[in-house]
Amino acid sequence: MKVALFGAGRIGKVHAASIKTDPRSELVAVTDVMTEAAEALAAEYGIKACSADEILADSSIDAILIASSTNTHSDLIEAGVKAGKAIFCEKPIDLSLERAHQVLKIAASHDKPMMMGFNRRFDPNFMALKAALEAGEIGKGEMLAVTSYDPAPPPVSYIKVSGGLYRDMMIHDFDMCSYLFGMPKSVMAHGSCLVDPQIGEAGDIDTAVVVLTYEDGRIATIRNSRRAPYGYDQRVEVLGSDGTLAAENELENTVVKSTTSGVTSAKPVYFFLERYMRAYGIEWSAFVDAVVDGKPVPAGIQDGVNALALAEAANQSLQSGRPVDVTAELTGA
Amino acid sequence: MKVALFGAGRIGKVHAASIKTDPRSELVAVTDVMTEAAEALAAEYGIKACSADEILADSSIDAILIASSTNTHSDLIEAGVKAGKAIFCEKPIDLSLERAHQVLKIAASHDKPMMMGFNRRFDPNFMALKAALEAGEIGKGEMLAVTSYDPAPPPVSYIKVSGGLYRDMMIHDFDMCSYLFGMPKSVMAHGSCLVDPQIGEAGDIDTAVVVLTYEDGRIATIRNSRRAPYGYDQRVEVLGSDGTLAAENELENTVVKSTTSGVTSAKPVYFFLERYMRAYGIEWSAFVDAVVDGKPVPAGIQDGVNALALAEAANQSLQSGRPVDVTAELTGA
Amino acid sequence: MKVALFGAGRIGKVHAASIKTDPRSELVAVTDVMTEAAEALAAEYGIKACSADEILADSSIDAILIASSTNTHSDLIEAGVKAGKAIFCEKPIDLSLERAHQVLKIAASHDKPMMMGFNRRFDPNFMALKAALEAGEIGKGEMLAVTSYDPAPPPVSYIKVSGGLYRDMMIHDFDMCSYLFGMPKSVMAHGSCLVDPQIGEAGDIDTAVVVLTYEDGRIATIRNSRRAPYGYDQRVEVLGSDGTLAAENELENTVVKSTTSGVTSAKPVYFFLERYMRAYGIEWSAFVDAVVDGKPVPAGIQDGVNALALAEAANQSLQSGRPVDVTAELTGA
Amino acid sequence: MKVALFGAGRIGKVHAASIKTDPRSELVAVTDVMTEAAEALAAEYGIKACSADEILADSSIDAILIASSTNTHSDLIEAGVKAGKAIFCEKPIDLSLERAHQVLKIAASHDKPMMMGFNRRFDPNFMALKAALEAGEIGKGEMLAVTSYDPAPPPVSYIKVSGGLYRDMMIHDFDMCSYLFGMPKSVMAHGSCLVDPQIGEAGDIDTAVVVLTYEDGRIATIRNSRRAPYGYDQRVEVLGSDGTLAAENELENTVVKSTTSGVTSAKPVYFFLERYMRAYGIEWSAFVDAVVDGKPVPAGIQDGVNALALAEAANQSLQSGRPVDVTAELTGA
Repeated sequence: MKVALFGAGRIGKVHAASIKTDPRSELVAVTDVMTEAAEALAAEYGIKACSADEILADSSIDAILIASSTNTHSDLIEAGVKAGKAIFCEKPIDLSLERAHQVLKIAASHDKPMMMGFNRRFDPNFMALKAALEAGEIGKGEMLAVTSYDPAPPPVSYIKVSGGLYRDMMIHDFDMCSYLFGMPKSVMAHGSCLVDPQIGEAGDIDTAVVVLTYEDGRIATIRNSRRAPYGYDQRVEVLGSDGTLAAENELENTVVKSTTSGVTSAKPVYFFLERYMRAYGIEWSAFVDAVVDGKPVPAGIQDGVNALALAEAANQSLQSGRPVDVTAELTGA
Repeated sequence: MKVALFGAGRIGKVHAASIKTDPRSELVAVTDVMTEAAEALAAEYGIKACSADEILADSSIDAILIASSTNTHSDLIEAGVKAGKAIFCEKPIDLSLERAHQVLKIAASHDKPMMMGFNRRFDPNFMALKAALEAGEIGKGEMLAVTSYDPAPPPVSYIKVSGGLYRDMMIHDFDMCSYLFGMPKSVMAHGSCLVDPQIGEAGDIDTAVVVLTYEDGRIATIRNSRRAPYGYDQRVEVLGSDGTLAAENELENTVVKSTTSGVTSAKPVYFFLERYMRAYGIEWSAFVDAVVDGKPVPAGIQDGVNALALAEAANQSLQSGRPVDVTAELTGA
Repeated sequence: MKVALFGAGRIGKVHAASIKTDPRSELVAVTDVMTEAAEALAAEYGIKACSADEILADSSIDAILIASSTNTHSDLIEAGVKAGKAIFCEKPIDLSLERAHQVLKIAASHDKPMMMGFNRRFDPNFMALKAALEAGEIGKGEMLAVTSYDPAPPPVSYIKVSGGLYRDMMIHDFDMCSYLFGMPKSVMAHGSCLVDPQIGEAGDIDTAVVVLTYEDGRIATIRNSRRAPYGYDQRVEVLGSDGTLAAENELENTVVKSTTSGVTSAKPVYFFLERYMRAYGIEWSAFVDAVVDGKPVPAGIQDGVNALALAEAANQSLQSGRPVDVTAELTGA
Repeated sequence: MKVALFGAGRIGKVHAASIKTDPRSELVAVTDVMTEAAEALAAEYGIKACSADEILADSSIDAILIASSTNTHSDLIEAGVKAGKAIFCEKPIDLSLERAHQVLKIAASHDKPMMMGFNRRFDPNFMALKAALEAGEIGKGEMLAVTSYDPAPPPVSYIKVSGGLYRDMMIHDFDMCSYLFGMPKSVMAHGSCLVDPQIGEAGDIDTAVVVLTYEDGRIATIRNSRRAPYGYDQRVEVLGSDGTLAAENELENTVVKSTTSGVTSAKPVYFFLERYMRAYGIEWSAFVDAVVDGKPVPAGIQDGVNALALAEAANQSLQSGRPVDVTAELTGA
């Protein structure tokens, strides 16, 4: 299976390594608006750097991996569909929910696997939690709590084009809730600017709590902060009728020091590359499974739209100060 | 310091033991509408069982401890004030917020210590968390999360007279939020009946999430369930600008077993008597400190009214599906 | 059951509180060579301070609790036997193994319960470990490791009369091995002076490892240090054919702090009073069970002799640099 | 840097992957007495499978990696020295200490890096422990305890040619002690056959405790078992003058389940490939650092001889039942 990569930035490089590691997939081309970045990556992998059009026109290429900037995602998905490629796209589909709905319609007619890169679905810890939940090890799930803090906020320049905390950061947690509990019926959002006043001046929040309520009475809570100085705090907890499942942080190492200052363990691993490096490899193999073996795609375009719809609902809730219903109009379903 | 006990039930017995343990306080009388219960406790402690009126009229008695049923609390507080006694009263003041406001006014003129029995303020774990928070060990607090699950629901007959989950169960967690973060400006409540349909038929919920938002942007989240089969799940977590503090559960013992089934520790201690037994003793000593040494009361009548006001706001929010402001009208402050 | 206490020092006070807590036992008299200490304790409990002879002659006294200095233990046990009392004696029986053998013979003819105060057998953590081991939860035990560090060394003046680390400190761990694995066939001792040169000058060691080997091939390892600045480090671990059981330290509280410095828990509780306070109460109740209900004594005179015999063997091994066999001559059995 | 691999078995494949991952090293040839294994690996990596002689004669090859069976190690090291190659060799040098001494002498004259594959020195947990120890975070080290259990014993056919537990299994732990505490002055060994009688019939043990004592009074304890059904149990603990450092096991994932059965975490990762996969990569990079950048080799031939000398001393101690001194005669130093 021959793969071309769109985007030679940080996340593109992670995917390039995953493609190389899975013996069933071969990276053959890369493109980037920053041609130097594309050429550097091409040199490292002994492949060609070329234009997007060349890739789309090359019938020997089976799949494209879209890891370019967010504003290119929806156009590239559409182009990939027209070119008959299997498509792996980093989240989100688009910052505009309306545009995402258009992509969803186009995707419906495509006969090749299309997958959204919700990397956390492939974290071994969250996968083990989901497996235990689905195996009924704690009975029926009732309450879900997702804690997701970044170690430090991004530059304000990034915040300004990010689409806001709900679409940029909490979108992963919305997807985690969908992954574990399905789609909710209502979204209630709270948010503040406590970390950096400049984020507030840019019209965004940096601290947020969202509550999702489900048709059958289940409740999910998401907590986000742009700052947890001790590292990337990524936890999920589910209360069920027979017990609780909790996926805790991964620590830098297992050393425990006992002194007069207390009993000290290592910090959580610092950020998403450290925490989710294994997940990226598992994620890519799942896409190859879909393309090569016809297995179902574990996160499709609809999942991408769903997460975006929940972010949109959260934005509306924060504006109005009231819960917002999750309607078919929002999800396009 | 001579003490008389109102109520010889389960919690009354716990307090009797605490009174005995502190060498500065002496239990001298007990009363209960169930005279047999009063007489049994009197026999065990070598004290007299008598009527409430006899206690109130006995000028040698310095303090009364009100551990009788909730519907007697406000009347007994008023009677105690009239009789010039120091007063320790189990939570809540009353199920009626209006009645609690009356008690608050009467209390304002009393010159003896009056203390509400919010036992969790005296749990060594939560005390250590609060001390670290106030010492600035994690900078300024930003998000608070309280997890509080009972091991199993009470009988439905109890649910019917309990005042509902927010006033009966979450009232402790409202007080924990006040203890750590002060009073919020707004309350948003969610609730479901997932544990036992009979609880729903009785008009109550058994699963609840409440979000408190603060004037300065801080956010607190409370999760309650009437059922956590593995024991009493009592945790508090605070994210601050410099880190996180979490008070975890106390386990039955420290044994860890590693077998092919995994690595297994003991369960959390089963319920409030096991978990908060030490807290009851520390709580009582704090009251004795106030009566004997004139130290400030760590939880007064206003704290009791505040917790009840948050419960009332939660009830209104659950009804309306919207956030409810915490006004001076609610708190009587 | 009426009890008289020999010794009004620190450990005597702990036992006095235990006697009071168990409703089946009543403290009626105390004696101490420091008459002021005896009188202070007598005043606190409203009992009489008197001479040892008065206690032994008082036929209304059912049991004596020997918590006086080590050099009085064997004589008091013998006197208690002659006076027909049930006897609870703090460890060790005597610093002289020969003298302990004499006591063992005299004890053989006594028809009242006699119990040695090996408090760790009553620690809820070690009790839970033993129960799991005996229930076969890890199959058959194969290797045992006991870690036992004091927070700080005692004064050198104490070291000089202590009988040495093996008889004074490790004797508890020898008993723990007997409790869990029975008596070994051989003892190999290692020891150093690393903590305080004055301890070495006094002819003792402060750091020690002893290996016990059993007839059936099982092996136990004991590690001792007089100094662990973070608190009292008291752990036991057993590898069995189906898994491992480990009893870990009890921490001061359950608060966990995550900052840039790492993830920090509280220290282990500081020393034996903090760690074993619950054990002392359970221990005393076990003695009352034996006296009042005729239940078997969980740690008898033979257990006291056995622990002393292992300490003697360790001393011999340290001297010779070779393993020492545990013979009938050593144990008196 | 061009590398040839001797041995295409399980550990050879691990090293092949490490060589590929470090961009500074290139695998160019492989040899194995099982030519099919060599050809399969050669095909996977697009390199040549050839004879040992061809490799040694090829002057374009900078380094050889010896991962063939133990009985070939010493001859291949000597051949590599003659051929002027940098040499990375899996442990042990040889089962014969005498033969290892010969290799040590030959190595002394070699001017290329020579490194022994003591993989545990490169485990991030043990590296972090050593770094903290050397940074003085717990003061001066006093007692060391190494726990090292395999999940299940190898086939008895392997046991028969393994050289025995001390040379085959505990050799890693001897090296860990040298890595952290240096070389001891004396070795006392204990061992039993508790896991599988067939191991005993083959003249070996499966359960062992060894105590190492140091000139300055420090003491190290090693515990080995061929069976820990819950996984690979690999822990190291050091007591120092200011505290304790412990490197704990890595678990399969971070999920914690709380039910009526207790609080259950995942098991330790199963065996050495899972546990030390990262270590193999770090180890290889350290060798490349030595060859390419002239950095010191972190584990040399002398370290290999030292570990073998301690194993030899342990064998003598087990035979004699007495401690054995670690002499220059043993270590060749």
